Amino acid sequence: MNRSPVEEGCLERIRPGEEERGLICDMASALVREVDDSGFAKGMIVGSVARNTWISGDRDLDVFMLFDPSVARGELEKKGLALGRDIATRFGGEVVEKYAEHPYVNTQINGFDVDLVPCYNVDSASHIQSAVDRTPFHTRYIRDRVRDLTDDILLLKQFAKSCGVYGSDHMTEGFAGYLCELLVLHYGSFDDVIRNAALWTPGTIIDIENHRAKDFDEPLVVIDPVDPERNVASSLSLRKMSEFSVFCRDYISNPAKEFFIIPEQKKISRQEFNDEIRRRGTYFFAIVFENPDSIPDILVPQLRKSLRSLESLFGRNDFRVLRSDCHMGDERSVLLFELIDEELPPVMKRAGPPVWNRINAEKFLRKHLGHTFSGPYIEGGKYIVEVERRHLNVLSLLKSPEFIESGFGKNVKESIESEYSVLRNEEVWNGDISGFLYDYIHKEPANVRILQNRI
Amino acid sequence: MNRSPVEEGCLERIRPGEEERGLICDMASALVREVDDSGFAKGMIVGSVARNTWISGDRDLDVFMLFDPSVARGELEKKGLALGRDIATRFGGEVVEKYAEHPYVNTQINGFDVDLVPCYNVDSASHIQSAVDRTPFHTRYIRDRVRDLTDDILLLKQFAKSCGVYGSDHMTEGFAGYLCELLVLHYGSFDDVIRNAALWTPGTIIDIENHRAKDFDEPLVVIDPVDPERNVASSLSLRKMSEFSVFCRDYISNPAKEFFIIPEQKKISRQEFNDEIRRRGTYFFAIVFENPDSIPDILVPQLRKSLRSLESLFGRNDFRVLRSDCHMGDERSVLLFELIDEELPPVMKRAGPPVWNRINAEKFLRKHLGHTFSGPYIEGGKYIVEVERRHLNVLSLLKSPEFIESGFGKNVKESIESEYSVLRNEEVWNGDISGFLYDYIHKEPANVRILQNRI
Repeated sequence: MNRSPVEEGCLERIRPGEEERGLICDMASALVREVDDSGFAKGMIVGSVARNTWISGDRDLDVFMLFDPSVARGELEKKGLALGRDIATRFGGEVVEKYAEHPYVNTQINGFDVDLVPCYNVDSASHIQSAVDRTPFHTRYIRDRVRDLTDDILLLKQFAKSCGVYGSDHMTEGFAGYLCELLVLHYGSFDDVIRNAALWTPGTIIDIENHRAKDFDEPLVVIDPVDPERNVASSLSLRKMSEFSVFCRDYISNPAKEFFIIPEQKKISRQEFNDEIRRRGTYFFAIVFENPDSIPDILVPQLRKSLRSLESLFGRNDFRVLRSDCHMGDERSVLLFELIDEELPPVMKRAGPPVWNRINAEKFLRKHLGHTFSGPYIEGGKYIVEVERRHLNVLSLLKSPEFIESGFGKNVKESIESEYSVLRNEEVWNGDISGFLYDYIHKEPANVRILQNRI
Repeated sequence: MNRSPVEEGCLERIRPGEEERGLICDMASALVREVDDSGFAKGMIVGSVARNTWISGDRDLDVFMLFDPSVARGELEKKGLALGRDIATRFGGEVVEKYAEHPYVNTQINGFDVDLVPCYNVDSASHIQSAVDRTPFHTRYIRDRVRDLTDDILLLKQFAKSCGVYGSDHMTEGFAGYLCELLVLHYGSFDDVIRNAALWTPGTIIDIENHRAKDFDEPLVVIDPVDPERNVASSLSLRKMSEFSVFCRDYISNPAKEFFIIPEQKKISRQEFNDEIRRRGTYFFAIVFENPDSIPDILVPQLRKSLRSLESLFGRNDFRVLRSDCHMGDERSVLLFELIDEELPPVMKRAGPPVWNRINAEKFLRKHLGHTFSGPYIEGGKYIVEVERRHLNVLSLLKSPEFIESGFGKNVKESIESEYSVLRNEEVWNGDISGFLYDYIHKEPANVRILQNRI
């Protein structure tokens, strides 16, 4: 293996040492034994620890409790939770119940973040009853093939993390750990992933087992080796795929160590932010409300949907949006809009039906006759009127009933209905979101950030 | 014939009386005799006088001088002009040389506006050498079929005139006299034209001789009975077609005499115009320049093209146009724009190439690196930058080199290059264009104007 000093240096930092390895294996074995000894289920370590692909310092330990498929679903949930709770308590951890596709137990033991997850021990991936049942198959598939590719996988994961494209959660929409592992298996090494991904275009398909059973729309398609109907990269956004591809290109021409260093979150000061507003000349509006009582994987997609709905509300009212973004803080969520227009003239143009659509055209004509700035007149075969605009400024729109009804997700809507505030320009900044606002203003993908520091 | 009192009343006003008829026929015969007597060509009256479809008070007399097709083109032009000049002088008229497809003579004799036009006396419409050779065929076709439809044609012409859709010139883009005549021949009466046109949709085809020899894109297609490859309605705009259809509908439900009364041109006062600007809250800009030395049928299409070019220049620079219009005055032309935006923030978004287009993407990245408000970042697979806007206000754009190069017609460009002024809001009004500005602000097609006065 012919690694660059930068890659070797990275590996020295992120490869778990003997001691860490020992600690984690001891902990894992102890937990698996507890599950086995219960008699209810078979214990299995899944995730990066089981695959030997965890990065030094990671403290996530996923313990699956495999129940026989003959156990009824309700029974599995009950027994799974009870067993999880029991084991957590025995190891001195506090029990937190969580929910993915079914309930599971999360706990902290000796500095490890341990998930105790019940699932069915099916004999083939085609017999799974829920997504968690698939995880053991992923673990076995990778474990059996990882051999001497461990370092390559570690490098790729660290590269993706540093560049901000690691994680398949809804906030990141990036590369899952399993996806990184498959890419290394498929291309053969970290270097080969970099060289190939640098040439990716949307529509790239990777099918290691050559068993794809359907078509996919996503920009990158990586067929799951244990399920021919599943795209492992389904949650990867076009943006994160493009960024990764560009990072690979830039890493080839400029293999800087910064590509493996997770940058610290920078913050923008109140003064700097206010200076930026003035310099840009745009209008910042933040809609702030309390976080609904739901997990990020439910709330974040709702925030995204809210952004899109409000962008179209702004558009319908002729306020142009330069950019928008959302942020889920510890207590409050923020929908941030940067607008090109804050005030609009009273007159607006409204198109009616084609005049050939006689009944509606007549209705439109009668409705507007005598109440227009100009018209009704005919343009392109349609009646047009120039009438009074409803919302002359952004604040009027953001305090209107249309705003509330513009199409937020369920939980976001409930929270906004109970209370929301609208902050404008200088009012937007506060310490809690100074990192989010820094990222919004600078908006640099990793390659640009790295180039900026060097040029 | 079962005509309404409104239609009878109209006919009494517009049907030429015995005296007028006698005067015009005497004049026409005298002119034709002069042509015949020259020995060079055969005289023929064409146009509405020849077809007995002129409206009382019209003073246009079109005398065609039909030359033998054996005469060379150059010879025809020379002899035609000489003969026209000779006849005009003999009748005491001043000679004005004009130019359509070839030169002709225009003169004023006894209060008549006389055109003396040379053309070829071909034996079939398929042998014509230029569009003027076709005119005698139109005249013969209508003359042989007009019979007792004279009053219907007069009514339709007056209806179209009063409603502002009469005339196939480039400013009007409406219904030519010949087109009105064909519509009456085709549908059978004025009433039938109204009832049928009320139901028109774009794509309507009328082919009296059932001999259409090609397809046409225009909204209304009326195949020329003397030329299967020509659409008589080719210069009719979708707008004027729609308006006519709507006027027919409205006349059916409200057969008011105003549909036959040509409205006087109203004017807007300086004070009223300034009040409208304030009320609308938009930004008016007029670009004013001397008329180039060319005829309306050349200049008006160039003014229209200039409007479109400038609309797209505004669009590219993010200034939104509510509406625009042009005006060719006696000495100066005006391009008028009503804008939603006058000032814009310094920051603007610019999209680069897709990141997969590697060479261009790299160029774009390097070009903008370090010179942006935000970015370069990636969105939808493309590099995006937020950079300094070039024109922060409309005046800056209208005084820039891009303005001059934005794509006016040839003559308009020459005039603007030599001098132009930009007038803003209150500066726009002056007495010469107070009629144009009245029409711009009120923008009412005939049916709306008539409804407004009644409601």
